[in-house]
Amino acid sequence: MSPHVTPEFELIARYFNRPARNAVLGVGDDCALVDVANGMDLACSVDTMVAGTHFFPDVDPENLGHKALAVNLSDMAAMGAMPYWALLALTLPAVNHEWLEKFAKGFFDLATEFDVSLIGGDTTRGHLSMTVTIMGEVPAGAALKRSGARAGNDIWVSGTVGDAALAVAHRHGRLVLEADDYHEAVMRLYEPTPRVKLGQALRGLATSAIDISDGLLADLGHICKLSKVAATVELEAIPVSSIGAKHLGSKEGLSAIVAGGDDYELCFTAPTNARESIEELTDVLGVNLTRIGQVEKGSGVKLLDESGRAVAPDARGFDHFPPA
Amino acid sequence: MSPHVTPEFELIARYFNRPARNAVLGVGDDCALVDVANGMDLACSVDTMVAGTHFFPDVDPENLGHKALAVNLSDMAAMGAMPYWALLALTLPAVNHEWLEKFAKGFFDLATEFDVSLIGGDTTRGHLSMTVTIMGEVPAGAALKRSGARAGNDIWVSGTVGDAALAVAHRHGRLVLEADDYHEAVMRLYEPTPRVKLGQALRGLATSAIDISDGLLADLGHICKLSKVAATVELEAIPVSSIGAKHLGSKEGLSAIVAGGDDYELCFTAPTNARESIEELTDVLGVNLTRIGQVEKGSGVKLLDESGRAVAPDARGFDHFPPA
Repeated sequence: MSPHVTPEFELIARYFNRPARNAVLGVGDDCALVDVANGMDLACSVDTMVAGTHFFPDVDPENLGHKALAVNLSDMAAMGAMPYWALLALTLPAVNHEWLEKFAKGFFDLATEFDVSLIGGDTTRGHLSMTVTIMGEVPAGAALKRSGARAGNDIWVSGTVGDAALAVAHRHGRLVLEADDYHEAVMRLYEPTPRVKLGQALRGLATSAIDISDGLLADLGHICKLSKVAATVELEAIPVSSIGAKHLGSKEGLSAIVAGGDDYELCFTAPTNARESIEELTDVLGVNLTRIGQVEKGSGVKLLDESGRAVAPDARGFDHFPPA
Repeated sequence: MSPHVTPEFELIARYFNRPARNAVLGVGDDCALVDVANGMDLACSVDTMVAGTHFFPDVDPENLGHKALAVNLSDMAAMGAMPYWALLALTLPAVNHEWLEKFAKGFFDLATEFDVSLIGGDTTRGHLSMTVTIMGEVPAGAALKRSGARAGNDIWVSGTVGDAALAVAHRHGRLVLEADDYHEAVMRLYEPTPRVKLGQALRGLATSAIDISDGLLADLGHICKLSKVAATVELEAIPVSSIGAKHLGSKEGLSAIVAGGDDYELCFTAPTNARESIEELTDVLGVNLTRIGQVEKGSGVKLLDESGRAVAPDARGFDHFPPA
């Protein structure tokens, strides 16, 4: 009898078996093999996206392929690591070749941009979801952890925050964006730009870093908790897009901007004497970096308005398990 | 305002944040960090299990925790690698603390047995599924690949095959096991024993290896395809349990034994001059190793009965995407 080549196996070969330039052994065996360079730690992370929970059912599969990898690259960025290898576990309700072709295009276009090789994976049948494992290298001892923030540090954020959450709020009917604004904002949701080069450039400058996936205040809260410090953020200083500027005045808009997630910008802390070096990165990397507040002794995150009064937005982060 | 600690985060802390002895940085940051030793390649693999596709809805969560890790350890075994680190992406329809406690027990009992640390993960809401990424080390150049089988090699299999698939066939009503036999067979399905030590012992002895997840003939077919060889298997030689012996005579029983999967035994090839060394492993490791056939020139897998006639069992492997 002939060797039993399952359609599952053919699926991997057809859409996902690309040359893995950095790997000792790529897709097709029980494990993939890679060579981690001397003096480097292996950094790794995993993220799942589930249809209905993390994305709207009508999302373009190409956007989804991009995003599934982008959110993982963003984790590498937040550690200052260099992403090299990815594993893709894809659960599909059925084999839809048009869908797979578009998903693979979105995934590999971004992978190529960052020189990341897909070295393994698994395809299974079930409710649509995708789990990407990202692996890469960071010089031993140089990773940007969440636990390194110190009182007196500045708090910085890259790019602008809020557009992705504003698009979600619009889709949920919590606020209304103009049509052009929605189309612009939703691309921040669907095709976030992982700040990989910025993360690497911040090694030796930043004391801690995190990517903004749960929302600016929630993610800054994670830094505070692990660093055992407090943070004060000035609302006026938070960098928003021209779309965000239109909605900062409304309760729902403010909530999306400071507590909505999915922007995948970096929030990081650094000593005040690093200000000039960090500002120079704006020109070098072409990404705005803005000081939004200070790290202090204590615990918790405070948001202050221009008159110095505490603001308490409706601050649910993107929580998959809200209390019943 | 207080730092925003999401219930998702608490879930990880409560059930899955154990000391990661081998890691530079474990659960709780954007990435985990590990130090891969000099001269070692990093081996990695990912496997997803979906409720309804890979396990019956009534399975004990403790069995499920065991199996989710076991199938990944089995991939490491098939490469001769030493598993050290795991990432767990868990998708749950709701937070059920009793379920989580049992799942974590099954997972960590096996992790402890093999000295594997859970160093990261993700929890999301959705249809029940779990994706485990396993990582470990193998001496550079020494991994057991699927592509190394050569004409003239013996074909070996560890333990006995078929019990797991017989339990599945019983549950699907395709054959009937006696009650005691079912209870014994189903534990092979639910709590397979990954052959990690065997895989490591086979480095330098075996020319290729694979773990039997799709079925003996299908998985041997994968070796043949990647090694560009053929295989002949003698039905009489295939090691079965006392349960398997009762069902080898029926069409459905034969199909389960040679084409059913989920046993997670190792199938491997080795030169004839390695026979004595391999037989010694049986005593050292306490696992039976049986020669079942020969590697030949050509392509495809042939199964022969005692009179040398080709047998063609209904040989669908465990295929998640059967042709429509």
